[in-house]
Amino acid sequence: VAPSLAECEAHDAADPLAEFRDRFALPEGIIYLDGNSLGALPRATAGHLTRVVEAEWGTGLVRSWNEAEWIDAPRRVGAKIARLIGADSDEVLVADSTSVNLYKLLRAALSADPARHTILTEPGNFPTDLYIAKGIAADDPGVRVHTVPREALVDAAGPGTVVLLTHVHYRTGERFDMAAVNSVVRGRGGIVVWDLSHSVGAVDLDLAAARTELAVGSGYKYLNGGPGAPAFVYVARDLQARLRSPLTGWLSHAQPFAFSDDYVPAPGLDRFQCGTPPILSLAALECGVDLYLEADMALVAAKGQALCDLFLERVERLCTGLELVTPRDPQARGSHISFRHPHAYAVMQALIARGVIGDFREPEVIRFGFAPLYNSFTDAWRAAEVLAEVLASRAWDDSAFQVRSRVT
Amino acid sequence: VAPSLAECEAHDAADPLAEFRDRFALPEGIIYLDGNSLGALPRATAGHLTRVVEAEWGTGLVRSWNEAEWIDAPRRVGAKIARLIGADSDEVLVADSTSVNLYKLLRAALSADPARHTILTEPGNFPTDLYIAKGIAADDPGVRVHTVPREALVDAAGPGTVVLLTHVHYRTGERFDMAAVNSVVRGRGGIVVWDLSHSVGAVDLDLAAARTELAVGSGYKYLNGGPGAPAFVYVARDLQARLRSPLTGWLSHAQPFAFSDDYVPAPGLDRFQCGTPPILSLAALECGVDLYLEADMALVAAKGQALCDLFLERVERLCTGLELVTPRDPQARGSHISFRHPHAYAVMQALIARGVIGDFREPEVIRFGFAPLYNSFTDAWRAAEVLAEVLASRAWDDSAFQVRSRVT
Repeated sequence: VAPSLAECEAHDAADPLAEFRDRFALPEGIIYLDGNSLGALPRATAGHLTRVVEAEWGTGLVRSWNEAEWIDAPRRVGAKIARLIGADSDEVLVADSTSVNLYKLLRAALSADPARHTILTEPGNFPTDLYIAKGIAADDPGVRVHTVPREALVDAAGPGTVVLLTHVHYRTGERFDMAAVNSVVRGRGGIVVWDLSHSVGAVDLDLAAARTELAVGSGYKYLNGGPGAPAFVYVARDLQARLRSPLTGWLSHAQPFAFSDDYVPAPGLDRFQCGTPPILSLAALECGVDLYLEADMALVAAKGQALCDLFLERVERLCTGLELVTPRDPQARGSHISFRHPHAYAVMQALIARGVIGDFREPEVIRFGFAPLYNSFTDAWRAAEVLAEVLASRAWDDSAFQVRSRVT
Repeated sequence: VAPSLAECEAHDAADPLAEFRDRFALPEGIIYLDGNSLGALPRATAGHLTRVVEAEWGTGLVRSWNEAEWIDAPRRVGAKIARLIGADSDEVLVADSTSVNLYKLLRAALSADPARHTILTEPGNFPTDLYIAKGIAADDPGVRVHTVPREALVDAAGPGTVVLLTHVHYRTGERFDMAAVNSVVRGRGGIVVWDLSHSVGAVDLDLAAARTELAVGSGYKYLNGGPGAPAFVYVARDLQARLRSPLTGWLSHAQPFAFSDDYVPAPGLDRFQCGTPPILSLAALECGVDLYLEADMALVAAKGQALCDLFLERVERLCTGLELVTPRDPQARGSHISFRHPHAYAVMQALIARGVIGDFREPEVIRFGFAPLYNSFTDAWRAAEVLAEVLASRAWDDSAFQVRSRVT
């Protein structure tokens, strides 16, 4: 039996993470279940950004590269993210976008071993992962992209393989067993690049324990770093000196301010920096990450699972016509729940009109993300209620909900 | 005879661009001559950024990709920059960093013609330009980087050549004749990639008239976009459909929100987008670019030349021990003036201690940038005065000015 509203309120009252909800500037009357696409705004961000803009840029001017430690921001924020994912502080760096970082790691992994010639991934992986891989193959006749359904994927790995996987699937929410995949692929002589975009800040991650070698992740989803926030790159320490980034911008140099004509890569992870770091975006990302440093990540992951469980139970009790896409087993999924519905686009538009913001993904999928730092049990309860109303009212018959916007 | 302070004040009073100075939040008591490294803060930026953060991100949340037109920002701000450089609105896009954009264009130019195998550039080019080129050659045995001093450079171009040049040299201030170089290189069957980082917002640029094919530029120097602001990429319209970016992230796709597994590049310049655009940094850049849209670019360029002329005349009248590095001919230089001095680092530290901020560049160079929108003729006059005091006092004997900071 799904819990009552009173029971949800009791859950919220007992939630050790409940205090974090007030640290976010969520609009009144909105149940925001799209933090897996764009995380909510931390209350601290606007003030911090104003200080960085007015005091550091406006008054400090170029001196702030030293005096406000701008030059350290990629490493400093990277070290903070490292604490959330079970990595060491010198194994994570903030730089560029997820797409650019995928390119760096895939090419670095391929060029490190002349026997490597195949990027192995699954059909339906997040588009940018597939497109970056395909772009590399289009540019280099020695590289091919091989897509294999996940059931058979690791068995297709071999000594020439760089496996590219998104840890939590953006659409279905399915989660790989990272340690198991790493182990099998390593045993077969391959190497894995993980995309943690839909995992970081939402599920338990221990990259050291899982013996993960390479990973990237987004700053603007559960990390709440703001629209288009810079991404991060993880390279296990033992691998750093053996890998060469293809994007050898000046901040990847061992001595960037010597202005030498000769290129010498930085000895450690800094070789995966490239151009001048985007300080304003980094400042916003740091506010998002700092909130997580106050939270117990085990509680964060457990709450995400509990919110998903509650929502799923209640939707299945109240709604008809939905096909569950996401695994029921919390260990086999991330922190979002997806359903297929023949009128998925219109259903989501009708939900948004009623103040429940999730999103639509091709084909015919509605998706609800649960951000443990700011979503509550009553959010999950009410969202299921509103979804049931939308379905019962056949909202898709309303033409207003059928007009597609460009970005969905 | 160099003008008097009274004459400088008269110049400022008659300056049609003088009103722009108040549009910047410059600190009291500072003469800022490093806008060629990091541009000053426009007064409008902090408020605009707060609105983007609080209203668009905080309240609009994920809906702002459509409703606040975030998704159009790379094209919208690119089209504005196009107006400053003599390009059409669909020929400029804001994306990534200068370094990443250099990589895109160099690889695109190389891969467009199998006969192209050489990146031709000059020794002493800005480090990131050299390093990106060398990184491409390190990854691809079919590509080599050939450096030739500028006197002999275009004569070394041929059908297999991609010429990579910084239009205004970051250290010496020397400026290439863009149209002449384009013409000679094209006549020899090569193609030129221009780095406009030290030109845009400071000197006359007419990419159409110069028949420029490919260019990149920085957003954080004269454009005043903020520390690490995103950069721009220019591709002449006729070339766009023939070039393939190596960085095929999802926003380079013809239909990014179709979430198809197959990669199809966008028909036009959007194929040089890559990952999700950094909206907060783009918002700050847009404030900087918007100020230029109110100015007459011919006046901007003329004022930059006049400021440099005045500073140079007065320094040569008052100072000894400096060796001019920058050409005297305004048509042969950008908007900064550099001198060599055996104690250059300490001289610049002493200037900064006295409120005149320029910068130091290896080896032994002090550099003074003149930003036409906010520097005045009295700034130039006073800076020369302070430089003369620093030199006369042998400030380099003071050990406090000899301690090197990491970033200079």
